[in-house]
Amino acid sequence: MSDLQRTQTCGQLRKADAGDEVTLSGWVDTRRDHGGVIFIDLRDRYGKTQIVFNPEHNAETHEAASVLRTEYVISVKGKVEERPEGMANPDLDTGEIDVMVDKLEILNSSETTPFEITGDTEVSTELRLKYRYLDLRRPQMQKYLTSRHKVYQITRRYFDSNDFVEIETPFLTKSTPEGARDYLVPSRINRGQFYALPQSPQLFKQILMVSGFDRYFQIVKCFRDEDLRAQRQPEFTQVDLEMSFVREDDVINMIEGLMVEIFKEVLGKEISAPFPRLSYHDAMNLYGCDAPDLRFEMTIKEITDIGAKSDFKVFKSVAESGGQIRGINAVGCASLSRKNIDELTSFVNQFGAKGLAWFKVDENGLTSQIAKFFNAELQKEIIERLNAAPGDLLLFVADKESVASQTLSQLRLNIAKSNGMINEEEFNLSWVVDFPLFEYNEEMDRNDSLHHPFTSPHPDDLKHLEDRPLDVRARAYDLVLNGVELGGGSIRIHSQEVQKKIFNLLNIDDATAQERFGFLLEALKYGAPPHGGIALGLDRMVTLLLGLDDIREVIAFPKTQKATCLMVDAPSDVDEKQLRDLGLSLLKPD
Amino acid sequence: MSDLQRTQTCGQLRKADAGDEVTLSGWVDTRRDHGGVIFIDLRDRYGKTQIVFNPEHNAETHEAASVLRTEYVISVKGKVEERPEGMANPDLDTGEIDVMVDKLEILNSSETTPFEITGDTEVSTELRLKYRYLDLRRPQMQKYLTSRHKVYQITRRYFDSNDFVEIETPFLTKSTPEGARDYLVPSRINRGQFYALPQSPQLFKQILMVSGFDRYFQIVKCFRDEDLRAQRQPEFTQVDLEMSFVREDDVINMIEGLMVEIFKEVLGKEISAPFPRLSYHDAMNLYGCDAPDLRFEMTIKEITDIGAKSDFKVFKSVAESGGQIRGINAVGCASLSRKNIDELTSFVNQFGAKGLAWFKVDENGLTSQIAKFFNAELQKEIIERLNAAPGDLLLFVADKESVASQTLSQLRLNIAKSNGMINEEEFNLSWVVDFPLFEYNEEMDRNDSLHHPFTSPHPDDLKHLEDRPLDVRARAYDLVLNGVELGGGSIRIHSQEVQKKIFNLLNIDDATAQERFGFLLEALKYGAPPHGGIALGLDRMVTLLLGLDDIREVIAFPKTQKATCLMVDAPSDVDEKQLRDLGLSLLKPD
Repeated sequence: MSDLQRTQTCGQLRKADAGDEVTLSGWVDTRRDHGGVIFIDLRDRYGKTQIVFNPEHNAETHEAASVLRTEYVISVKGKVEERPEGMANPDLDTGEIDVMVDKLEILNSSETTPFEITGDTEVSTELRLKYRYLDLRRPQMQKYLTSRHKVYQITRRYFDSNDFVEIETPFLTKSTPEGARDYLVPSRINRGQFYALPQSPQLFKQILMVSGFDRYFQIVKCFRDEDLRAQRQPEFTQVDLEMSFVREDDVINMIEGLMVEIFKEVLGKEISAPFPRLSYHDAMNLYGCDAPDLRFEMTIKEITDIGAKSDFKVFKSVAESGGQIRGINAVGCASLSRKNIDELTSFVNQFGAKGLAWFKVDENGLTSQIAKFFNAELQKEIIERLNAAPGDLLLFVADKESVASQTLSQLRLNIAKSNGMINEEEFNLSWVVDFPLFEYNEEMDRNDSLHHPFTSPHPDDLKHLEDRPLDVRARAYDLVLNGVELGGGSIRIHSQEVQKKIFNLLNIDDATAQERFGFLLEALKYGAPPHGGIALGLDRMVTLLLGLDDIREVIAFPKTQKATCLMVDAPSDVDEKQLRDLGLSLLKPD
Repeated sequence: MSDLQRTQTCGQLRKADAGDEVTLSGWVDTRRDHGGVIFIDLRDRYGKTQIVFNPEHNAETHEAASVLRTEYVISVKGKVEERPEGMANPDLDTGEIDVMVDKLEILNSSETTPFEITGDTEVSTELRLKYRYLDLRRPQMQKYLTSRHKVYQITRRYFDSNDFVEIETPFLTKSTPEGARDYLVPSRINRGQFYALPQSPQLFKQILMVSGFDRYFQIVKCFRDEDLRAQRQPEFTQVDLEMSFVREDDVINMIEGLMVEIFKEVLGKEISAPFPRLSYHDAMNLYGCDAPDLRFEMTIKEITDIGAKSDFKVFKSVAESGGQIRGINAVGCASLSRKNIDELTSFVNQFGAKGLAWFKVDENGLTSQIAKFFNAELQKEIIERLNAAPGDLLLFVADKESVASQTLSQLRLNIAKSNGMINEEEFNLSWVVDFPLFEYNEEMDRNDSLHHPFTSPHPDDLKHLEDRPLDVRARAYDLVLNGVELGGGSIRIHSQEVQKKIFNLLNIDDATAQERFGFLLEALKYGAPPHGGIALGLDRMVTLLLGLDDIREVIAFPKTQKATCLMVDAPSDVDEKQLRDLGLSLLKPD
């Protein structure tokens, strides 16, 4: 048992504390020996303090300190002394004092760590994950997770003060047929049956609204059995809420208030609400995607009409076959080399575009291999349509709408990033609204819900559910930050009749609807109030807030593909008996 | 889309609001028709407001209101009017006003509910669970879950203000061999391998201490694949924390501060800290269990020495064979009938006790069938030992120690409950400390950890780890509220050497230790600080706080044995293809 009990943290002592006797505990961050005196920066989560072992002050303790190495854990008792004139370290909060050590207790030793804890040297991701406990000891990672902690507290305080009730929804839920990406959990008691881990508490929170809870929130883990990617983890954290007796604006205002709080308290940044709203239609037309990065302009323009009049066969045939010719103006990018443009062509190929048509703009009009197919009049029209000026580079994709949109959306981002057109300090928040209720699934030749089947259609469009379902708008809204969807929500269906009709339109017959969602349909019979809500991805939000790219930087124990002996959260083998108890056996590998 | 947007809740309006135009939304709680006027109590989470449809005020709205039935969801717009002299309802916060309705919008209808929402009539648990969304609509259930909400917020605020960092630990973790009660989650990516859902974040929080986080907390779901019982759910919620550079007192003080806050803010009750501490040894001796209910005295006394001197063969033989004769004084219970005492005998049989010896105390000494085997001197000794007086009933069990303890512990509770000796208003918090590190597992003839293998032995007892392991004390502590263990914790092992030795003493060989806990042993090499923590059962805590018996009252969606169509959290069948994708097949039933 430790004899020394710490009285202060390593980030706490100031000039005013000089003369006090203190006890500090922490890790040996750096050690310097100078003129027979040992200087150690002692580190804990709160900061660093320089402690001094001076043989003239205490020979025994100085002697004991000789064994100290980096990452040893120690407690020291000593006197706070103001540093001599000119010796203060302005980079350290505690830089005006030293602690002259009288007593040392070594709490634990440390082998040489596989990477430096405070070093800025690049360490491979693999090594960092393998030794996650050392990686997390780095001040930067501590800052990330402490910021995440702040987001939790701010969020809950905010909802609590707005009369929301925090309610835990279950993790072991009913597996719904066709939930192909659910994680399944075999039940020991009901052998041969399975729970599913929730992809979202959607239905539970709707049930809570039927229960009259009025305002529900939760910060909750959700699960999706998908491949790992840098931006996606199979378990992820969601800020989840639902409100009764509300319209779109109520949910949107509530979330804007939250974002204002979070930016103020975590980053000290004032952001202004309301955030701009963009219709889904405009987002797709102007930016080619439903979560556009609005930190830069470069909107997409359509020139199908101009292309049709040209002599360029590719454009003419696309225009005639009902496709689109759309493009962007990469302002000031006429200096890009032929090689650069070839790279852009390869880039667009991966999104299904067969080619990339381009023009450079100079004083005389357009130049490029295909400029000859466009007469002066058409060139002028193109220049006007794209607001182009000499020095600009115009890039076009001619394809069916979905390919043109996706390609140009990515191309726009690519050019903005590689040409420094994005202000990385900016946080651009916006809403995308007026989504369609359904999207056509080409592969299956059917309409699917764009969000989920509980999303309320716009009441003005109810009459077109049967005859023009793809024109029906949903009462849905997505929050977008710097081109990343932070989350989405909607006003839900609270009428049993409408809910049944939507299931039917989704080709879910009554029996299947009853099997999968019977409890919901039943609940809607007993006075379900109008309600709506939203869910925000917390991992993503914190990642973006901190200006990071990789979501794993803000997750203490991220998942890895490979099990390593040091990671405790990887899957592993289990013995046959355990499986048998669950009524299961392993299939032989094919 | 609703035309009326609520301006106030149903719990808000007061006399001072008279004259205002308001819009309320909620459920029709009760409807009374009186003199051609319709009076409705409109209910939401915040309260009830009487709204009035008067045909003289607005004939059209009155007509529209005629269809309203209980649990219809409506919005009404109208004017707040002070109720006439003598008509105020003092039972209602809003009882001084009515709202005279001008406009009515019916948001949803309701079928007749299977039970009354506000009725105090008894409803079967089964029906309540089947229609959980209606059960949760009852004001009582709303109060329970709102209190639970408060406990969350108070707890997090408390830890936040004490510099704890909230960090999420993973749900999909590595399955450790022999973790027989883990829920397993088959991995789709690593076919044939499994995650396990955590029974506690124990190892993760220890890793976080190695990472220098210093103070960690989380309110977190944990999982145990066990049979359902009223007091146990397979998923349960834990208040989890861990601290570095601490001793037992630091953790204990921190939790006492939390409990003081919770009692003050949830119940408005001042409780005083520090809570009494009882050694494990005393708890077992005096109360027969390690989580004693201290709201009443009735301590257990041992009379093995007296029994040995008596002529009662049962006592003599137990005393001679190393067993114990222990008993309690049921003060004032001499009036219990022979039948009552027979019932107590059957009661103790279920805990393995072969019989129950009893004496009634009167002015002349002890009376009972066996009193004749005890001479006057021995009778006097017994009376003195048990502090008995005329009118008392003395009850003894003669058996081996473990049976005597368990039996008397239960008997003590039984008598106290059935004789009104427990003050149900009292909250009695205490700590049990100085647990043994190991307990002997008779069945397997080996020593097991009493808590878990990461618990630190008491440093004074380290030297006896090998020769007298069962005498080694653990640095563990349990918090007990009214005889229920709220949670437990310990100072952990931070030395790799000690940890290895404990594994060895638990018959975990080096290879197995490496396989199961290699990452921990490895982490202990790199400067692990001394640390300790605790975990409290939140479901239990809230249940007890609210004076309830059944833990399911404070869980929004509790688990049930049987899947009913309305419960969304029961296991269900999955199709074969899903299983195949996971590399699994169902075993044929035996």
